[in-house]
Amino acid sequence: MENQVRVGILGVTGYAGVELARIISSHPNAKLTYIVSHSYVGQKLSEVYPHLQNVVDLTCEELDVKTAQQRCDVVFTALPHGASKEVIPALYEAGVKIIDLSGDFRYNDIRVYEQWYHQEHTAPELLEKSVYGLPELHRAEIKKADLIGNPGCYTTCSILGLAPLLSAKICDTKNIIIDAKSGVSGAGRGLGIDYHFCECTENMKAYKLATHRHTSEIEQELSLVAGETIMLSFSPHLVPMKRGIFATSYANLNKSISHQEVVSLYQEFYKGEPFVRIYESGLPESNHVAGSNFVDIGFCIDERLNRIIIVSAIDNLFKGAAGQAVQNMNLLFGLEETAGISAAGYYL
Amino acid sequence: MENQVRVGILGVTGYAGVELARIISSHPNAKLTYIVSHSYVGQKLSEVYPHLQNVVDLTCEELDVKTAQQRCDVVFTALPHGASKEVIPALYEAGVKIIDLSGDFRYNDIRVYEQWYHQEHTAPELLEKSVYGLPELHRAEIKKADLIGNPGCYTTCSILGLAPLLSAKICDTKNIIIDAKSGVSGAGRGLGIDYHFCECTENMKAYKLATHRHTSEIEQELSLVAGETIMLSFSPHLVPMKRGIFATSYANLNKSISHQEVVSLYQEFYKGEPFVRIYESGLPESNHVAGSNFVDIGFCIDERLNRIIIVSAIDNLFKGAAGQAVQNMNLLFGLEETAGISAAGYYL
Amino acid sequence: MENQVRVGILGVTGYAGVELARIISSHPNAKLTYIVSHSYVGQKLSEVYPHLQNVVDLTCEELDVKTAQQRCDVVFTALPHGASKEVIPALYEAGVKIIDLSGDFRYNDIRVYEQWYHQEHTAPELLEKSVYGLPELHRAEIKKADLIGNPGCYTTCSILGLAPLLSAKICDTKNIIIDAKSGVSGAGRGLGIDYHFCECTENMKAYKLATHRHTSEIEQELSLVAGETIMLSFSPHLVPMKRGIFATSYANLNKSISHQEVVSLYQEFYKGEPFVRIYESGLPESNHVAGSNFVDIGFCIDERLNRIIIVSAIDNLFKGAAGQAVQNMNLLFGLEETAGISAAGYYL
Amino acid sequence: MENQVRVGILGVTGYAGVELARIISSHPNAKLTYIVSHSYVGQKLSEVYPHLQNVVDLTCEELDVKTAQQRCDVVFTALPHGASKEVIPALYEAGVKIIDLSGDFRYNDIRVYEQWYHQEHTAPELLEKSVYGLPELHRAEIKKADLIGNPGCYTTCSILGLAPLLSAKICDTKNIIIDAKSGVSGAGRGLGIDYHFCECTENMKAYKLATHRHTSEIEQELSLVAGETIMLSFSPHLVPMKRGIFATSYANLNKSISHQEVVSLYQEFYKGEPFVRIYESGLPESNHVAGSNFVDIGFCIDERLNRIIIVSAIDNLFKGAAGQAVQNMNLLFGLEETAGISAAGYYL
Repeated sequence: MENQVRVGILGVTGYAGVELARIISSHPNAKLTYIVSHSYVGQKLSEVYPHLQNVVDLTCEELDVKTAQQRCDVVFTALPHGASKEVIPALYEAGVKIIDLSGDFRYNDIRVYEQWYHQEHTAPELLEKSVYGLPELHRAEIKKADLIGNPGCYTTCSILGLAPLLSAKICDTKNIIIDAKSGVSGAGRGLGIDYHFCECTENMKAYKLATHRHTSEIEQELSLVAGETIMLSFSPHLVPMKRGIFATSYANLNKSISHQEVVSLYQEFYKGEPFVRIYESGLPESNHVAGSNFVDIGFCIDERLNRIIIVSAIDNLFKGAAGQAVQNMNLLFGLEETAGISAAGYYL
Repeated sequence: MENQVRVGILGVTGYAGVELARIISSHPNAKLTYIVSHSYVGQKLSEVYPHLQNVVDLTCEELDVKTAQQRCDVVFTALPHGASKEVIPALYEAGVKIIDLSGDFRYNDIRVYEQWYHQEHTAPELLEKSVYGLPELHRAEIKKADLIGNPGCYTTCSILGLAPLLSAKICDTKNIIIDAKSGVSGAGRGLGIDYHFCECTENMKAYKLATHRHTSEIEQELSLVAGETIMLSFSPHLVPMKRGIFATSYANLNKSISHQEVVSLYQEFYKGEPFVRIYESGLPESNHVAGSNFVDIGFCIDERLNRIIIVSAIDNLFKGAAGQAVQNMNLLFGLEETAGISAAGYYL
Repeated sequence: MENQVRVGILGVTGYAGVELARIISSHPNAKLTYIVSHSYVGQKLSEVYPHLQNVVDLTCEELDVKTAQQRCDVVFTALPHGASKEVIPALYEAGVKIIDLSGDFRYNDIRVYEQWYHQEHTAPELLEKSVYGLPELHRAEIKKADLIGNPGCYTTCSILGLAPLLSAKICDTKNIIIDAKSGVSGAGRGLGIDYHFCECTENMKAYKLATHRHTSEIEQELSLVAGETIMLSFSPHLVPMKRGIFATSYANLNKSISHQEVVSLYQEFYKGEPFVRIYESGLPESNHVAGSNFVDIGFCIDERLNRIIIVSAIDNLFKGAAGQAVQNMNLLFGLEETAGISAAGYYL
Repeated sequence: MENQVRVGILGVTGYAGVELARIISSHPNAKLTYIVSHSYVGQKLSEVYPHLQNVVDLTCEELDVKTAQQRCDVVFTALPHGASKEVIPALYEAGVKIIDLSGDFRYNDIRVYEQWYHQEHTAPELLEKSVYGLPELHRAEIKKADLIGNPGCYTTCSILGLAPLLSAKICDTKNIIIDAKSGVSGAGRGLGIDYHFCECTENMKAYKLATHRHTSEIEQELSLVAGETIMLSFSPHLVPMKRGIFATSYANLNKSISHQEVVSLYQEFYKGEPFVRIYESGLPESNHVAGSNFVDIGFCIDERLNRIIIVSAIDNLFKGAAGQAVQNMNLLFGLEETAGISAAGYYL
């Protein structure tokens, strides 16, 4: 238990925050030392989330940079949108490693951020230093980073599904469509009539078509992989389940290629990746990954139309948020990359 | 279309309110003339609830007693708790028939109300004039009433399940237990973390054990039927479905009685009732009644323990609120009792 | 009650069959006279589906063409795949009007049927006489038909969502993608591990990508509308809800067009249609149509990519099966087209 | 990795079996060496359950006692009802430790088994040697056992909720009622119309009232604790969720006792128990325990009626089956009792 990474979580009572607390609670090389929740100061986390009774018995505290500096080697910031921009520069100054789960530090180009978030970025110098925390594409930089912008849930699922295809330059880059479906926990714990049980259950809908912020993240990363500017359709949908991101991506092939060749191409691209599972046959379903850090990817080639359909699935709270954040922490501190996040999901 | 009952709904954008609007929209002898929603004044109801597009195209208005008086023969008040007490006396004065869906006018004894609702009743003289709107027990009074206290959802299901048993005096009246389960729409459309999709789905819980207000309504009505003071356990639970009240009621028999005798006793008690269905075998399930005004009742006699278990089910928004309110309206205006509410539920 | 259309349902215990029985039970101009279920001969339908107690009290019978001929003006065939081909020719001979809910009589070209269904068609001469039962496109022929091939659920939703666009020739016809999502009742009542509650709830998946039979139906009808051969991607998904088809369709625009122009174009195309609702703003959700015969259509124009995204939604058992079948019956017998199917859905 | 307990699972493709495989896959002191599934011989478990890809890559084999003897220190038998009776005697002879998840080895009195299971017991001599695997009541015997009858899901939840009360002799033992609610996975992976998604979702029901086999198990264990014969009502219900057992138990108090005294009594009874969590205030919900080995217990004292209501919750697949089986394995092999099963559940 010596030499364990000391972990702080800011915004611990949100869904990503509590998933982080749960994962850290059984991580072999890390321990939780500081949990912050503005709304629940003085209450035990296990009073807010009773499943953590006898497992995480820490009490929520106010945010204090000094305390974070003294008690933590790394801080995960899972704050409501906007709140992280205030505290992150101070933590950075204090020398604490930061893994930020907001959108604020995911961009290479500040103009893209400001265009899609409709606000000024208040820490442009930190944005430059931050690293995009998608290990499958940026592992080397992550290991040396001080500030990691942990990717969004839709983003992780979409990018990993399409990167090998674009890297291989075997599709038309002008007609890419990602039709994505999310469980409701992706919207967080905040209240809103759209997330009322009676409005969600037995219902589904599309939202923010053509305008969802994650579009810009996906385009940024796929442009890097493709070596050209990628612009694509990204269409989010809400489906009545708690967890899960499911992306159905479409692209027109620019050459004839067999199913097996696509499988091999993806297997090669993701060789050695501990969390990517390529389907030789069949297709992922959201409960194949629920509760785990895996991303599952499968394929259908429509020979009639010379079009490929790629199906990818992740757990939005795990590989799409808390699990990936821990994967980044593991890389940052030289731990086994899979430590604490290697278990299978729960399926049922 | 002449001589149709002109209907107003106060609180039309709540779940009971919109269910009323839906039922009235296809009622052969009633038409909607006035809909009130403080939060949505100036908006069409079909903007708030798009399923009503092309079906109900009225616009939500502010509450105004004069308007109600001019446009309505009857007003359903489905207001947030407390709000109805202000407006109902004024409507009553104005000579409008009132069917109130709150708890305010359901009591014979003001002290019971004040004890369980922890507040003073502000219209005690109206409480005296009001009639408890459970047609199966109070049909004659309902027909002549000016103000009807429409029963609660748990209440309707529980009372109708137990009334014949208590009327027949064949059980110990000291050990009655009602273990009741409700879908989430019973809690209304208001926001609360307890009704967030992610907290409800795949979850169940008990709440307000031994203290739920509907206990007092059930005891009032069953005491009348039994001819003695009944005190019982009423335990509400929340289960992850939209609609439905399901009550499992327990009583110790004071004599030996066969399953068939119980069936006959119930059939006799509810003879001619259009909405009560007695199961000769098998048991009700909540989707047997979802979307309909039926109350289904089945039985199990545990001979080993000489105990009877009664299972009753209703749709909380229909027979437990809006449908029963329309049944009361039909009685009040001399219409066919089943008009507009006779259809089967939707099962799927 | 005189002159009511006498209705038979073959396959009454399947989900489409029982929905037909429910709709007919409250239809003002039709009555159920003959219900057939091979598996439940001699049982009341209300024993199999207790929500129909006191509403439909007919008993399931064996199939007999003579009986159908004597008792029925029209027969709905909602039989398991393949079974309808045997009985329909005999019924046709006997002069009974037939509305078939299988895929067998939906095709103009027998080769298309045989290619997508991988079997020979056994009644090619009837196939020629049959009419495709989509009133919005084939109303005139339906009125004179003797045999109607009632469209599939995915099909109805997809065709109606895209027809005006293709009719107006304002999009590239080579890059049309329909990403469709269905509730589980679309798979019927048959048992299969894929439809086990524990495998469906909190799970979603894609299936039959590029090979689903409804693709051919959609292409047939859209080709007619477009005046050219349309080939497109149709991708079905299963989402954890009972009812609902939700289609997100993509096409590249070949000219610049505003949102309002698209709305007008659709409003014009569907002028006078009682069941099509065009959204001037906002988007359909599956619970806007659940329990009703409406098809709701909304739009998003992605100006960045000059692409249109069309969202359409229906209830798969209603407008996608039983409701549309009744709409066809109404047309066939000169009844009000909306008779028995005009009510709003239930939303909750 | 030396000295790991070698584990076999018979019936690995059922829901309890695959949950066992998942738990063992991350158990620090055990490894899976033999998995048997009659229906899937030759297939990888991860083909049947893709969430286990890269985690459990064993192939399902036919049952062979020799193989079990050679490869396993312990075998979990999670076979369809009846199948275990054949194989268990042979395994027992071969000296393999057995933890049986069926009902066959849970009884002290063969007559009780035969009365509730309506069949002869075929291995009465083994029944005598078997130990009831509820660690909180039988830890000492479990440690020395060769054959453990792992308790049922309803049973575990009910017994642990009531044992301290009966041990303290503070209630009337003639009026105990357990109203229990279960998620659908309790019914296993077998097909049946009752477990079809469309029949389960948005629906709930009671079943096997007064006749469910688990009644006899509960009565056996509570009689031991109480020191007198206990007979009680046990009422199972099916609610639309995957996992979870939720029991609401009622008993009349024979003395006045405060809430805090009850809490203390339970805390004392379960002192040192790693998996029992007593609620000082509030009540358990099923998602407090989902995915974990915890049993949560809370209380409501109804002073008006001098009645106690006890709410207890477990995960039926975990503490109600696989997790408890692993807890028994840990005890059997002298491992840390919480090894491999100490993590918090997933809540969301």
